Amino acid sequence: MTKFDYQAVTATVIDELAALIGPDNVSASEADRNLRASDVSSHPAHPSDVVVWPQTAEQVAQLLSLANRKKIPVTPWGAGTSVEGNPIPILGGILLSTERMQAILQIHADDMQATVQPGLKYRALNQQLQPLGLFFPPDPGGDATIGGMLANNAAGPKTVKYGASKDNILRLQVALADGRLLQVGSRSLKQSSGYDLVHLFVGSEGTLGVITEATVKLAPTPKFMSAVVASFPNVDDAVKTVVTIRTGGLEPAALEFIDAATAKMLNQAGDVYLDERPTLFMEFHAAHQDILSIGLQAVRQICEINQAASFRATTDPEERVKLWYARHNAYTIAVKAHPNTQFLVLDAAVPISNYPAIVAQVQQSLAKYQLTGFLLGHAGDGNMHVLIPYRDAETFERGQRFNEALVLRAIELDGTATGEHGVGIGKIGYMRREHGPAFEVMRSLKQLLDPNNILNPGKIFAPEEQNMDR
Amino acid sequence: MTKFDYQAVTATVIDELAALIGPDNVSASEADRNLRASDVSSHPAHPSDVVVWPQTAEQVAQLLSLANRKKIPVTPWGAGTSVEGNPIPILGGILLSTERMQAILQIHADDMQATVQPGLKYRALNQQLQPLGLFFPPDPGGDATIGGMLANNAAGPKTVKYGASKDNILRLQVALADGRLLQVGSRSLKQSSGYDLVHLFVGSEGTLGVITEATVKLAPTPKFMSAVVASFPNVDDAVKTVVTIRTGGLEPAALEFIDAATAKMLNQAGDVYLDERPTLFMEFHAAHQDILSIGLQAVRQICEINQAASFRATTDPEERVKLWYARHNAYTIAVKAHPNTQFLVLDAAVPISNYPAIVAQVQQSLAKYQLTGFLLGHAGDGNMHVLIPYRDAETFERGQRFNEALVLRAIELDGTATGEHGVGIGKIGYMRREHGPAFEVMRSLKQLLDPNNILNPGKIFAPEEQNMDR
Repeated sequence: MTKFDYQAVTATVIDELAALIGPDNVSASEADRNLRASDVSSHPAHPSDVVVWPQTAEQVAQLLSLANRKKIPVTPWGAGTSVEGNPIPILGGILLSTERMQAILQIHADDMQATVQPGLKYRALNQQLQPLGLFFPPDPGGDATIGGMLANNAAGPKTVKYGASKDNILRLQVALADGRLLQVGSRSLKQSSGYDLVHLFVGSEGTLGVITEATVKLAPTPKFMSAVVASFPNVDDAVKTVVTIRTGGLEPAALEFIDAATAKMLNQAGDVYLDERPTLFMEFHAAHQDILSIGLQAVRQICEINQAASFRATTDPEERVKLWYARHNAYTIAVKAHPNTQFLVLDAAVPISNYPAIVAQVQQSLAKYQLTGFLLGHAGDGNMHVLIPYRDAETFERGQRFNEALVLRAIELDGTATGEHGVGIGKIGYMRREHGPAFEVMRSLKQLLDPNNILNPGKIFAPEEQNMDR
Repeated sequence: MTKFDYQAVTATVIDELAALIGPDNVSASEADRNLRASDVSSHPAHPSDVVVWPQTAEQVAQLLSLANRKKIPVTPWGAGTSVEGNPIPILGGILLSTERMQAILQIHADDMQATVQPGLKYRALNQQLQPLGLFFPPDPGGDATIGGMLANNAAGPKTVKYGASKDNILRLQVALADGRLLQVGSRSLKQSSGYDLVHLFVGSEGTLGVITEATVKLAPTPKFMSAVVASFPNVDDAVKTVVTIRTGGLEPAALEFIDAATAKMLNQAGDVYLDERPTLFMEFHAAHQDILSIGLQAVRQICEINQAASFRATTDPEERVKLWYARHNAYTIAVKAHPNTQFLVLDAAVPISNYPAIVAQVQQSLAKYQLTGFLLGHAGDGNMHVLIPYRDAETFERGQRFNEALVLRAIELDGTATGEHGVGIGKIGYMRREHGPAFEVMRSLKQLLDPNNILNPGKIFAPEEQNMDR
């Protein structure tokens, strides 16, 4: 991999960084660098040359300005919970950690908004919000930072009702590569005032700017919640159920799918008793207990019409946790069931009408590449994950070929290479296929805002592609 | 106003346009040009030099390519229902009408999506969708085209539940100034695949590209609807009610506010009997009648706690229409009450906690500028309109000063110059104030994608600002 004409992080550079933000907030120690050299994915670790911990937006801007003048790569770092290598500093340089920017700056309870620093983790935010009866809805698996979630447009099981990160953001402060500090968006829920720069930065994975502050939308904590677990004779009937629940206006808060193989694995390894068929896990939220009960009746009817083989439902909080146990802990159980094993965690998404086709593809493709795989999907919004255990390079390689087949099929089915994990390193190869001429526009936006290509280089675009016009 | 170095639409140009899309789809007649020289606002009419009616995306791309080579302004035109002069061809040139691109290309009922041409009007789309139990939720006042709604990020009363246009779009086809045709986004509900170009074009008012096709999100037609009209002793209590309803998770489908002066005007001119106090109009949607009834009980309690002076509610469809009559017809009634009068229709938005402050500003400012004004707000999302009747240039001028005070105060209150009408011509003067350094980034995006400034010139940016770097 070419290093372009980036400059090295010399002792002088480290001194200059220390002068900007204080020597305690700069470290070139191996321990600090290695701790922030990989995310939770299988992408190879790569340490930065130096770690910096700015504490204010102005410091972030000054750091970027310095790095830009000196042409040193800067990779923003939140909690390292990404799954596509998004925050791995593959070209070395400066790792800009937001770990010391964790403040909640203001909670606007009446407006259901919070203004926070980017390094705040979403679970910590939600803990602070609990007494106010509010929460920040996007819920990725790991305890990500708000800045990281926005940068990757993270999502989770509750996105079917509450939206992804991009749907829960109103205003950002962003530091550009050249050190300019921008305020984009406003605290108004409605905005038609010029170009939507908020959504240009959300999902750009730190390649266009570094988020230094965010005003996010909050939602009322649901007063009452129900859970349903229903199994079906085949994938088609499960998907028909998803469609009927959504088009029926029942507004599920979560609508998750696992295939028969996953149910079987969970039964064997976890302390659970699932029907070993395609299964839906659902959650519904309401402001009143009776609303839940009415909804559950409708859901039961829909499941019965679609040939449900089993149907369990509850509005009791303890029972609900038990019913969802298998889905909530699916990854942990899978890990326990496969000691000394690593996992590929794959991500693709399609329109829900094409879910049966993508599930069929997964099953055929697992057979073709002789792989074990567990299908876990956010079926409510057509998103799907496949967990593929591997222990050796050869299985890993087959896993990669499986991934390629999955992604290409998802694109063919009017879907996308990534529903919620982002492009990072892992999905770079599919961008041109998915976006066609629009990919060139993305590249020109990158060049406009980061002409020296210092911001998280080698993500979204392959390093050699970023160099093309030079 | 400088004409820059644009080229004139000569007879040769008209022949070339006709060669591209057929002579029947090109007209330089005064009637055709004058019919598309103004929107519904007070901004002065200005005709284009020629009107073109392409029928396919490829034709749009070819037209833009031609105009770009020849440096001729192109102003996209939908239905002319804008209220900030957004589609007025103020520099002449080509008016690109989407009136002959009205096809529904595909309805994906199971996915709750429709793929349409940009000239389709949203009411026509909703008529076609009715038998399927689906609808496209954004509901601006006029019968706008889908392309125009997306270009302006239009919204309406139902945005509080269903979102603005930007929240109801998945995929666009866009023709760039240089004739490139892009596909951006996908039909997947979740997308984390590279930069969010969809939202770069949505709300860009035709200044970055022309939308040639759109896949929009649909929602299930609500099976049951209720209506509430409640009046309050003062604005604070009305706004507290709005806050409590939202934070209580009651998910209103519409939550509208009128002030006492508006209630009085409606009583005098319309066949309605409103309490002449600050009044909220609400609508709730549900999949079951009993859910509505439970919700209404909670709403009544909230209104009572907040000192409601009157409370009327119904779940009966006919009664509902009667209850909402005054709000639905407020503009028509205001027009009837003011014969031979024009109206300024103003738009600003703030976080809901600042609604009392902006209402106070409106009332003080009306007195200061000796104006009559009627306040109609989408209070659920902090959006506010003020209708100001005027008959002469002097009153119009005072109205402009009122508008300036309103907008500056909205920005000061963490809000925006425009919640849903867009920038067009009317809000250009506030962009720098609202966006600061981010405005320069908007300008550089415009230069990147439309270097010859042919696309809807003089909108969002003043013509002289667009010329700055030349």
